[in-house]
Amino acid sequence: MTVTTEKNIKEPRITLLGAGPGDPDLITLKGVKALKTADVVLYDALVNEELLEFAPENAVKVYVGKRSGDHTHSQESINKLMVDYALNYGHVVRLKGGDPFVFGRGFEELDFAASYSIPAVVIPGISSSIGVPGMQNIPVTHRGLSESFWVITGTTASGKISNDVYEAARTKATVVVLMGIHKLAEIVEIFKKEGKNKLPVAVIQSGTTHNEKVAVGIVDTIVEIAEENKITSPALIVFGEVVSLHPKFQPIKEFYDIIAGE
Amino acid sequence: MTVTTEKNIKEPRITLLGAGPGDPDLITLKGVKALKTADVVLYDALVNEELLEFAPENAVKVYVGKRSGDHTHSQESINKLMVDYALNYGHVVRLKGGDPFVFGRGFEELDFAASYSIPAVVIPGISSSIGVPGMQNIPVTHRGLSESFWVITGTTASGKISNDVYEAARTKATVVVLMGIHKLAEIVEIFKKEGKNKLPVAVIQSGTTHNEKVAVGIVDTIVEIAEENKITSPALIVFGEVVSLHPKFQPIKEFYDIIAGE
Repeated sequence: MTVTTEKNIKEPRITLLGAGPGDPDLITLKGVKALKTADVVLYDALVNEELLEFAPENAVKVYVGKRSGDHTHSQESINKLMVDYALNYGHVVRLKGGDPFVFGRGFEELDFAASYSIPAVVIPGISSSIGVPGMQNIPVTHRGLSESFWVITGTTASGKISNDVYEAARTKATVVVLMGIHKLAEIVEIFKKEGKNKLPVAVIQSGTTHNEKVAVGIVDTIVEIAEENKITSPALIVFGEVVSLHPKFQPIKEFYDIIAGE
Repeated sequence: MTVTTEKNIKEPRITLLGAGPGDPDLITLKGVKALKTADVVLYDALVNEELLEFAPENAVKVYVGKRSGDHTHSQESINKLMVDYALNYGHVVRLKGGDPFVFGRGFEELDFAASYSIPAVVIPGISSSIGVPGMQNIPVTHRGLSESFWVITGTTASGKISNDVYEAARTKATVVVLMGIHKLAEIVEIFKKEGKNKLPVAVIQSGTTHNEKVAVGIVDTIVEIAEENKITSPALIVFGEVVSLHPKFQPIKEFYDIIAGE
């Protein structure tokens, strides 16, 4: 606890804020309100920069993007920056793509703030795992096709494919793999080993943005189709019968005579 | 296709809109914009009625809530209402709790609109599966504790517990069960059979609202703790090591000597 007599030093506080999947209109009202009172915004690579306009003009805006293989900022340095700015400037909004707790390492930041006794709150964001297929009219659940969905990271701390992908390939859940496009061929092999060769698959790049690209196929064909469509990171992969509901799947369904739900 | 010469008949269209988990500020900006142009709003039981204020004053607002066991409106009658209103009034906003595609039967509504050639779009909402634990500082994923999360309905079309719950209890995924609080004891038994007696569990009722209640325990104790806290529907259940990060879990951790992540 620090007691200060200086008038213009603000109370340090941190808001972990989910920016949503890309379309700036997919931020929440609660998120906009937080941005409007920001003294500092620390934002990630996948955050739409239009959102910074909600912050006061004189707020400090700092890009702390790190993408896989391009560690301009380590998690440790982001944590430190966040706390330093809070102690010196007041309200830090830590603006993260999607939802802060869906592979966003958000809890590590929360924990770091707590270790300095800085109050921190979390404002959820639309997770790309649900919102990106959703805006493509692919429902992660649908009666008769899927009673659940399983969201897995394609980029684990160890660099290996998560064991959860192997487990998921055996189930009837809709499986959404985030940050796994660079391992698409490997992941597809796991589904093939489970005999899921005809399972519908969609790959969506830059979902909900102007650069969005969608490739739809089945386990046996998706690698080729994704290559033809030049799908690159950031992209997510959706495995499941629900993908058969996408309009692009109709010709495939006719070709393979796969039966989709009513 | 109908051609009309009357000037004041608007083009029918439908927006399936996710209202988020309860806090009205958790709606998206895109959602607010849709509401502002609504001629009709059809809204569910779990939708915060404050959101209706974003719609024009003269918009028709119709409650079409159905809760499990209280079918005042069947899905079929909602579908028909939605299309009738669109054909007669113009822009229908179908306002649904959480996200329209997470057990919301949203695709059935989309499909029904398509069968009448009425243009329909989907605007995602914050799913309670991620946002409700998140605002309680329970991250659905966290390095070292969980590389994935699996969201399952507790209320299947057949009335039975989904087979996916049995599968999920065997995995390391964070498992979120929506609409399953009335089957808590049965679901807990499934985890016990897998030897997960000491797995941390949280039950959260009316998440992100003023009526929010949280009970935290382990598989062996959660039924009793939920009863003590008088947790009732609507509530979700979170199974997973990530629940050990909740402040209420600290005394339990000390008691059972369960090791949580760094």
